[in-house]
Amino acid sequence: MNSFSTQLSPAGRPRPWSSVAAGMSPPVEDGRMVVMTRGMSLDEERVMLRYRLIGRAGAPVLITLGGISADRCVDQWWSDFIGPSRAFDPDRYRLLSVDWISRTDGRAVQTGDQAIALARVLDALGIERVHDFIGASYGAMVGLAFAAEFPQRIGRLIAISGPHQAHPISTARRIVQREILRLGAERDVPERGLALARALALTTYRPPALFEQRFNQGSARERLDALQGYLRHVGVSFAGRFDLARYLSLSESMDLHQVDPQRVRCLTHLVAVDSDELVPPSQLEALAGEIGGRARLHRVRSVYGHDAFLKEPEAFNRLLSRIIAGEVCHAVA
Amino acid sequence: MNSFSTQLSPAGRPRPWSSVAAGMSPPVEDGRMVVMTRGMSLDEERVMLRYRLIGRAGAPVLITLGGISADRCVDQWWSDFIGPSRAFDPDRYRLLSVDWISRTDGRAVQTGDQAIALARVLDALGIERVHDFIGASYGAMVGLAFAAEFPQRIGRLIAISGPHQAHPISTARRIVQREILRLGAERDVPERGLALARALALTTYRPPALFEQRFNQGSARERLDALQGYLRHVGVSFAGRFDLARYLSLSESMDLHQVDPQRVRCLTHLVAVDSDELVPPSQLEALAGEIGGRARLHRVRSVYGHDAFLKEPEAFNRLLSRIIAGEVCHAVA
Repeated sequence: MNSFSTQLSPAGRPRPWSSVAAGMSPPVEDGRMVVMTRGMSLDEERVMLRYRLIGRAGAPVLITLGGISADRCVDQWWSDFIGPSRAFDPDRYRLLSVDWISRTDGRAVQTGDQAIALARVLDALGIERVHDFIGASYGAMVGLAFAAEFPQRIGRLIAISGPHQAHPISTARRIVQREILRLGAERDVPERGLALARALALTTYRPPALFEQRFNQGSARERLDALQGYLRHVGVSFAGRFDLARYLSLSESMDLHQVDPQRVRCLTHLVAVDSDELVPPSQLEALAGEIGGRARLHRVRSVYGHDAFLKEPEAFNRLLSRIIAGEVCHAVA
Repeated sequence: MNSFSTQLSPAGRPRPWSSVAAGMSPPVEDGRMVVMTRGMSLDEERVMLRYRLIGRAGAPVLITLGGISADRCVDQWWSDFIGPSRAFDPDRYRLLSVDWISRTDGRAVQTGDQAIALARVLDALGIERVHDFIGASYGAMVGLAFAAEFPQRIGRLIAISGPHQAHPISTARRIVQREILRLGAERDVPERGLALARALALTTYRPPALFEQRFNQGSARERLDALQGYLRHVGVSFAGRFDLARYLSLSESMDLHQVDPQRVRCLTHLVAVDSDELVPPSQLEALAGEIGGRARLHRVRSVYGHDAFLKEPEAFNRLLSRIIAGEVCHAVA
């Protein structure tokens, strides 16, 4: 327990770091706290929020957040990015990540709610300002909301594959996902709905060329069977670990997300992946021109589309390391 | 009743032509016949097939076929294309179209089955050879199968937005559609499944740019509501007119479709729409190079993606008229 623990609910037990280089193990601390919801769109007066801190106490703080299915365990789902000579070096920085707040009735939270919740966590931890806010996908949306709401608390925003508002085709496909979830839930097969909605989501995360590359062998029947098996596996694995109300709540959160780019006045790096069809580069290119502060757009080439930030650790480590080290200049917007 | 009616089951009543130019009304004749299924992949010994003939008896025959939700009433769903100085002139050509055969248990028919069924209809009608086979979407797939199976019976193939095998991303999204249909059917809400599957299909027919153009006004909440209303309307309208087993059967037919391009040896015009993500132009470009006979690829610019053949009558009338009139040369493959 460290000095700020008195402000918090009982902290979770520290867990061993899952990706230890050269035998070094940076401190990992799980905590949870009750967040008051004043100013948020929630009905509840308070929500429980879980967070994770990794790295040296007192070091500059990096907020690191991923997509709607990510959680505070950034050392697990972004393990390749954490370590000496990687993008997030826990000897030099302290990483803060959280479990997204969501609603148990499936109604949407707002990305602005997530931003306020994060600010409350920073208050509780005694952190005035974060050095960088690095968000990918939903995390980038929340990053934009945070930068707009709390300009004095953020040094620099790195928003990967996340826009200031959802693309209508992405919203359309998420509407179908949520209707699948509701159909499953109302007809007493919630896991089936979850698996199917996730399978559909996957067809939006991964680009057509990747499907073509992986499923273009054999007869039409063999290709169909392989695809069916793959989608089923992806869906069922997800259904076993994710909650339906949480999926509904966070999915709709993306479609209600809206940030006025002019209000984002901190240094901003936007990262677009050329093959991302969920958040097309053209959208982030337009956004870069509308950001209120200095903004720069980086383009990453990858076959993985919206999942590139998870599947291309080498390219992203290189890019994020350079941005965080300040080696990449900002174009003046 | 004309001379071939003795070979057929009782023909349906002729219906008035729905799109009459300058008071002229070409003869429209609906018929139905029992088709023996020898050589097909069906269990049944025979299937009932409905066809429609439009235009002057004895004129050269054009087979005109659309997508899986189209039917023999080409004068309704392709009405803008029929008439003097339009692509299909019933004074000069006789148009033949059919209702797709499908299976009542939802299992797939093969595009080769559709081709054989068409050949049986031609036999019964005393038509040895068709002047042109014009197919769009699923109709183009069946056209390729027909050209491969019955090279002596086809003068020229015009295949619009239809490949020799499905793109894996399109198959993946249809797998999800069929799982939605099954979920709805098994949980006693088949119409809900139909509506939802169709809504999903729409997000593959229409390109992202079109969604962006139509649903980019107002707040995020307003855009979400508008999209939800639109998708619901599209789905519910479709559910009211389409059969679930038929959807399953024809949907899987596309994913099992496979034609060796080398076996297509007739004059072939492939038509690709630049914004079509269901059947990407790159796929048809590659196909054009593999066709066994002379082949030419035409590119159509449109915002309507896979639906362009329904939504761009001007461009398609112009192109099809020129091809049918022989004004467009073939590149030698």
